[in-house]
Amino acid sequence: MMKMSEGRRKLGIVFASGASNRVCCLIIYGAAALAMGYEVKVHLVNEGLVAFRKDVLPKLSTGDAALTAFPEYFRPYVDIYLRNLEEAVRSGKIKDWYSWLKELKETYRDSFKIYACSVASQFYEVKKEDLADVVDDIKGAAAFLDEVYGGPILYIG
Amino acid sequence: MMKMSEGRRKLGIVFASGASNRVCCLIIYGAAALAMGYEVKVHLVNEGLVAFRKDVLPKLSTGDAALTAFPEYFRPYVDIYLRNLEEAVRSGKIKDWYSWLKELKETYRDSFKIYACSVASQFYEVKKEDLADVVDDIKGAAAFLDEVYGGPILYIG
Amino acid sequence: MMKMSEGRRKLGIVFASGASNRVCCLIIYGAAALAMGYEVKVHLVNEGLVAFRKDVLPKLSTGDAALTAFPEYFRPYVDIYLRNLEEAVRSGKIKDWYSWLKELKETYRDSFKIYACSVASQFYEVKKEDLADVVDDIKGAAAFLDEVYGGPILYIG
Repeated sequence: MMKMSEGRRKLGIVFASGASNRVCCLIIYGAAALAMGYEVKVHLVNEGLVAFRKDVLPKLSTGDAALTAFPEYFRPYVDIYLRNLEEAVRSGKIKDWYSWLKELKETYRDSFKIYACSVASQFYEVKKEDLADVVDDIKGAAAFLDEVYGGPILYIG
Repeated sequence: MMKMSEGRRKLGIVFASGASNRVCCLIIYGAAALAMGYEVKVHLVNEGLVAFRKDVLPKLSTGDAALTAFPEYFRPYVDIYLRNLEEAVRSGKIKDWYSWLKELKETYRDSFKIYACSVASQFYEVKKEDLADVVDDIKGAAAFLDEVYGGPILYIG
Repeated sequence: MMKMSEGRRKLGIVFASGASNRVCCLIIYGAAALAMGYEVKVHLVNEGLVAFRKDVLPKLSTGDAALTAFPEYFRPYVDIYLRNLEEAVRSGKIKDWYSWLKELKETYRDSFKIYACSVASQFYEVKKEDLADVVDDIKGAAAFLDEVYGGPILYIG
């Protein structure tokens, strides 16, 4: 078996949440790891898979509160986050999530893969052609776990 | 200290969520890892512990929306998931979660353990006898972390 | 590259949730790992960052349901948790989360660090001086990932 210490560092990310106040973590941790030379593989499951539909992903860069989830107490803070996110995207301070992912894929190519879970695709009735073009492939849990073994996995739930 | 590269691969799963649109991840990733020869250990905490009560676990294979959580936008997609899950179980296409877990435990025996967190058991007032028989034992966080060290941990929150 | 098997064991914790029925995991797993000699590093993001504001952290040790999140079905169980948590803190059976964190930091010093994510700090408008004194520093995702590489990461979402 390959030693965990051999070869390149890895980061696995399972995106289950689909929330616009969680997709930021996928991108911030993913971009940071890629910049440090890691291989980064994302597995889209549950609402996280739906969030990568062509018609949904753009909404995650907007201030639409229907795409967030949080304990009620935090509402005013999530409102601040959404306002700042929307303003930062509008002013060009940061790219919208889709464009940022697209750029990461162009820069890091095979080091950055985004897979749709095959079981989730069936149960949520999401087909490859429904998904944004940043999604590379449909893959099962075994393939994903195997590709990222040796590094930590962030399950963004 | 044992090298992470030595011995069998490991997967730790913390199940905190208890949602029927998250328990699928416990089983899909768990089953995939077991089939690849990993040791898989699950730690049940918070609502994830309650979900493994004898009287609750069967409900997670039904279309009952009270057991789901998601940003409001995803409601129609979660409805599709629940309908497909219920139909797949009814038609025998997949086993209900309890039966699937039971089968995994019979097949993989000591390679697949499910523990209830001792602190969660106290604070949620869940006793060993309240839990489905797929739960092996009550164990603390230290024992769980130690058993899975060397592999990634999916915190399903 | 340092072998994952060399040096001390590590645990990374990303606290994204901010819920009072999740912060327990940060502390229970963190304390267990520290007692076993691990290095533990926490990265505060999203509502998890807000939860560590001076004016919010004390509320996470109370029975205030506005700080919880769960599928509706679990409400009576979360009520039991909150009642037991509040009672345990009041009776001195356990410390409130802030005091427990403070004690862990005094005991384990450099082995236990809590960082606020720099991007989250900007988007949620949380400044260092707004945060409880158990937060050591503001750090980016790259620094956090690098410090914990070799151990698992619990993404408490």
